[in-house]
Amino acid sequence: MTPSLERLVNQFSKLPGIGRKTATRLAYHVLSLPETEVKEFAAALTGAKGCIKLCKVCGTLSEYDKCDVCSDERRDTSVICVVEDSRSMSAIEETREFSGVYHVLGGVISPLDGIGPEQLTVKELVRRLDGSVKEIIVATNPSIEGESTAMYLKKLISPHGIKVTRLAYGLQVGATLEYADVSTLSKAIERRTEL
Amino acid sequence: MTPSLERLVNQFSKLPGIGRKTATRLAYHVLSLPETEVKEFAAALTGAKGCIKLCKVCGTLSEYDKCDVCSDERRDTSVICVVEDSRSMSAIEETREFSGVYHVLGGVISPLDGIGPEQLTVKELVRRLDGSVKEIIVATNPSIEGESTAMYLKKLISPHGIKVTRLAYGLQVGATLEYADVSTLSKAIERRTEL
Repeated sequence: MTPSLERLVNQFSKLPGIGRKTATRLAYHVLSLPETEVKEFAAALTGAKGCIKLCKVCGTLSEYDKCDVCSDERRDTSVICVVEDSRSMSAIEETREFSGVYHVLGGVISPLDGIGPEQLTVKELVRRLDGSVKEIIVATNPSIEGESTAMYLKKLISPHGIKVTRLAYGLQVGATLEYADVSTLSKAIERRTEL
Repeated sequence: MTPSLERLVNQFSKLPGIGRKTATRLAYHVLSLPETEVKEFAAALTGAKGCIKLCKVCGTLSEYDKCDVCSDERRDTSVICVVEDSRSMSAIEETREFSGVYHVLGGVISPLDGIGPEQLTVKELVRRLDGSVKEIIVATNPSIEGESTAMYLKKLISPHGIKVTRLAYGLQVGATLEYADVSTLSKAIERRTEL
């Protein structure tokens, strides 16, 4: 294997879930592509990394100061769906079931990993709770940390007189939100329950 | 999902065996990497594609006119191992069992796909058969096309008074050579049989 091919295999095998054999297969595939396509791939990599920042309102990945959802005036800002990360938000957006806005926590409370509310965007969420907000849907993953984060937010937000709901179980316990199929996730939004 | 992220997901999902969900996971992973690492990845992509050509002797992928094996004077040029592609060659090199040289066919004879000996480097192989070559090991994959290509080469080369052997079965029938584990592949080389 040539050094430049070796380097490419190493890069692919650093990706999550990609072992050395798969990385080798991918690298050889890249060599079989026309040069323009390889350049497009490389440009997409640096391009995505280069132009993405966090939305100043909800904290999701965005190319602008405000993300597509936050800058869409048709969205109902009285319902905020709290998610762990941008991937969960994308998964919910794909269902087209939800017309409110989002808040990206940046993770879940996990004392064992040293992550408390201060490491997340909890303060920013509370700052968004002006009189117009009527409901917070907590859409953290159905894991132990996701559940306890939901309970924490319930205790924190209920005193403001705002309804706090949780996505309906229907999600498989222990699974992650982004791998749920669209119809399961649609049901989970539709049948959300009050905490 | 932002347009630049979308572009990156599209690029990843073009890779063989990578579906849309995996591509999305990989793209988000890339966003979480430091910028320098993303640039290294992009450089490895264009770098590998940019500097790789085919070895003028054996036809494998190489950064120079002659590949590492062909330019290594310790290799035994009297034994030529014929493989379908550079990946098979890499797999055999990893066993460290074989001290001869290679010839990369560029595929196998497959009339249904319109691939005959003219589409492969068969002519170039025959041109290499000077008096010094004593054995040709046919290491095509153990598929129907791989077998018939081996038989074709046997008929073509035997009249030159050169021994033509085939890798021992021990390889799983229907499997591809690059996924064989090192010890299976080592045995297959060691116990190669005459065609």
